Amino acid sequence: MSGIDDIAARARSSSETWAATDPATRAGVLTALADALRGSGERLTAIAGAETGLSETRLSGELERTAVQLDMFASVARAGAFLDVRIDERDDRFALGIRPDLRRYRIPVGPVLVFAAGNFPFAFSVLGGDTASALAAGCAVIVKGHSGHPRLASAVTELARSVLADEGMPSDVLQLITGQEAGVAMLRHPFVAASSFTGSVRVGAMLAGIAASRPDPIPFYGELGSVNPAFVMPRAAAERAESIAAGYLASVGGSAGQLCTKPGFLFVPSGSEVTERIGEAVIDESPHRLLTPGIAESFEQRRSAILGSPVRVVRPGGLERDASGEAWATPTIVATTTHDLSAHAKALAEEAFGPLSIVVEYDRPEDLVGIASAVLGGNLTGTVHLAEGDAEDASRLVRWLEAHSGRVVINGWPTGVAVTPAMQHGGPWPASTNAGTTSVGTAAVDRFTRPVVYQDTPEELLPLPLRDDNPWGVPQTRSRAGESLTWGGRT
Amino acid sequence: MSGIDDIAARARSSSETWAATDPATRAGVLTALADALRGSGERLTAIAGAETGLSETRLSGELERTAVQLDMFASVARAGAFLDVRIDERDDRFALGIRPDLRRYRIPVGPVLVFAAGNFPFAFSVLGGDTASALAAGCAVIVKGHSGHPRLASAVTELARSVLADEGMPSDVLQLITGQEAGVAMLRHPFVAASSFTGSVRVGAMLAGIAASRPDPIPFYGELGSVNPAFVMPRAAAERAESIAAGYLASVGGSAGQLCTKPGFLFVPSGSEVTERIGEAVIDESPHRLLTPGIAESFEQRRSAILGSPVRVVRPGGLERDASGEAWATPTIVATTTHDLSAHAKALAEEAFGPLSIVVEYDRPEDLVGIASAVLGGNLTGTVHLAEGDAEDASRLVRWLEAHSGRVVINGWPTGVAVTPAMQHGGPWPASTNAGTTSVGTAAVDRFTRPVVYQDTPEELLPLPLRDDNPWGVPQTRSRAGESLTWGGRT
Repeated sequence: MSGIDDIAARARSSSETWAATDPATRAGVLTALADALRGSGERLTAIAGAETGLSETRLSGELERTAVQLDMFASVARAGAFLDVRIDERDDRFALGIRPDLRRYRIPVGPVLVFAAGNFPFAFSVLGGDTASALAAGCAVIVKGHSGHPRLASAVTELARSVLADEGMPSDVLQLITGQEAGVAMLRHPFVAASSFTGSVRVGAMLAGIAASRPDPIPFYGELGSVNPAFVMPRAAAERAESIAAGYLASVGGSAGQLCTKPGFLFVPSGSEVTERIGEAVIDESPHRLLTPGIAESFEQRRSAILGSPVRVVRPGGLERDASGEAWATPTIVATTTHDLSAHAKALAEEAFGPLSIVVEYDRPEDLVGIASAVLGGNLTGTVHLAEGDAEDASRLVRWLEAHSGRVVINGWPTGVAVTPAMQHGGPWPASTNAGTTSVGTAAVDRFTRPVVYQDTPEELLPLPLRDDNPWGVPQTRSRAGESLTWGGRT
Repeated sequence: MSGIDDIAARARSSSETWAATDPATRAGVLTALADALRGSGERLTAIAGAETGLSETRLSGELERTAVQLDMFASVARAGAFLDVRIDERDDRFALGIRPDLRRYRIPVGPVLVFAAGNFPFAFSVLGGDTASALAAGCAVIVKGHSGHPRLASAVTELARSVLADEGMPSDVLQLITGQEAGVAMLRHPFVAASSFTGSVRVGAMLAGIAASRPDPIPFYGELGSVNPAFVMPRAAAERAESIAAGYLASVGGSAGQLCTKPGFLFVPSGSEVTERIGEAVIDESPHRLLTPGIAESFEQRRSAILGSPVRVVRPGGLERDASGEAWATPTIVATTTHDLSAHAKALAEEAFGPLSIVVEYDRPEDLVGIASAVLGGNLTGTVHLAEGDAEDASRLVRWLEAHSGRVVINGWPTGVAVTPAMQHGGPWPASTNAGTTSVGTAAVDRFTRPVVYQDTPEELLPLPLRDDNPWGVPQTRSRAGESLTWGGRT
């Protein structure tokens, strides 16, 4: 594995250079990466389309989202709030004697290993959110490319490395490796300081175990499985059956259901029109290719297991595989009762990654929390549809969803994750390995930094963001002498 | 283990009640706990003294520190900044189409299992920093008491539970369990949501492994081993040999060396007077009891191994054990060279928990980074003593210490950790299991919360801190429509 050692050594060396860049330089490079992505958009989406089977519309939208994400992290790097600078002034009248001068900020952790996802060849791959946030933090990145889009991964890496060189940075700030064996070897490498991953519970749990059992364990941020339950309250079902049915089908079928936020369950009142509307809705039934033969095989197995359970077929959908193992699918929707869901939870409750979702008919809204507690684990999202008069019934359910997911959506659909400061994409296990962090939105940068404090350090030895003259103009939160115990600032 | 189940169930139920308290109520309870601790100070320090052998001065200071810590977390709870409320206003002109209304805050994770430490019977035990920060976060706490001070743990628990009841809260917001078996069973219990620990690398790594291999892994925050190297630069050694020697001995010998921040190594220039001054210094040589027979045994072994290595005895110190296994000690200081330290790193480099430290004589200051890289792992702290003209030599060393520790101390000593907003007590492995968090200072509260975001949620279903009318008056950071890409606020 000398190749691995070389790559790791180059990552470590370039990470030091990159960590030492000032905010404006770092932001400029991130913006240049965004511009380069847009400038090569047509060429890259063509490669992506051929490799993944995703539609041109979806891919060009995803490329733009990825560029916007880089721009946003450029603004994060420039603003410097992520450094979380805290200065406690020396206080001779501190409750416990003398309080020294303490100055804390967050430093980049070092080289980050990003396991790219197959379902977002731009947004969760080479220049996706994990890479963008690690770069904003000041870390070099090694991407373990996904086998579902190898040519695209190479093309984006090449583009990014030439941008880095053009901007006067070491191109090894971004490197690409391929193959599971290389990924695992790199995860074990002593120079790798943190890792992120988006994919299945099985692989994520395996990699998390490797990260935790290193001689020096490192943080591993995995986004794993989620069934994203959606609940339709009685009055909403009565008033908006048709639009709910249409929205649900669009959310289940988009990107052939291969989104981590696809609603895997829709709870509707027994006897409501929603199920019927879902069955009748006219949608674009042209088959979509699944991302890879491996995903196709898993999906076929999950679909068979679900169809072999006590469910009623609402929309049969289709799944056809060819000799090469590729598969084309249209949405499959089945319905069941809360009773059968509980009785067959083993077969039904696990995520089916692909265009399939289960409608669950419930009798009384006050039973929903009990059913959810019995059948559902942690999730990325939980959704509630309600109308005037439903809020009281919905209220307990919303609190339950808060406790068991990372995002609560009202009268919308969980797919289509906004990339913004308040976004949270991560939830209790098995949705994430670490529900306290997010892989989407500006807060994603926090995963790749750690705090260090300087005590009684002369100005000339302080890092620039901690100096009184604050040459980078970053936000500094001060706890002044005499205010020791009335701290109301950032924790 | 039905006792464990009952305790866990009570923790879960009381955690829900506690999580729902408003900031003023929560702060009031924390202040009442601080007052109760002070009010029973004499009685409690007497029990602590008998059980731990620590001095009355040390214990009454520690009790006051613990009370101040509770007061500080009361102010954290009251201010509400730890909720990290972010509101992204709906933006119809967002770069990627429509941005929904997103409102994010941090919620308590649920019951926290705190493994108390033996070396701080107040500050890292039943009502110590882990408990105070978990309570401020809104989590019920189960303390696994330390076997070194069982009567004190019971007395403090009883006091705290009566304060909780007096304040109208469930007394089960704080519960105590004892014994390693119960601790491990509780760490595996599905109702426990997070755990913290202060202790040895061996036990910490074992518990971290259990937390990570649960069916639903939970965060485990361990503060483990640290040798806290201190470096004396040439001019400082020449100018201040005597005061450095005195400060060093006080830092090594305080609390019989049983502090996680005790300087285990002092690097001094070869031929400087510092080593001689350390040998000559007149200090209080009255023996201090080590905390427990187990610690005494480990210390005796480490001390023998170090004395059996190529070292020169600077101060022999003493260690006497009685029939019951208790031991009384005075500081042992040995000296070695950088060459012998490297050659015998296995025997010398590991932490010796107790009153022993190693003086390492170096030839050239420019070699220090290389030696440190070869011999030292991650640490809680790194210290540099310098005088006019030393800064240039010290500069590379300071950067190295930043990369390998959580706190850099200049011209001071690492023992005596200030409890303040900027404090960072945690560092790279093996100092901590998670260098991104701290167990001392206001930021400790972040370990016990996780973010949740609400999307397009009507006011009446929003948690109070996320509402526009903000009834609790907590800080809310807004990203306004039209400012989507110029985010300069908190990440």
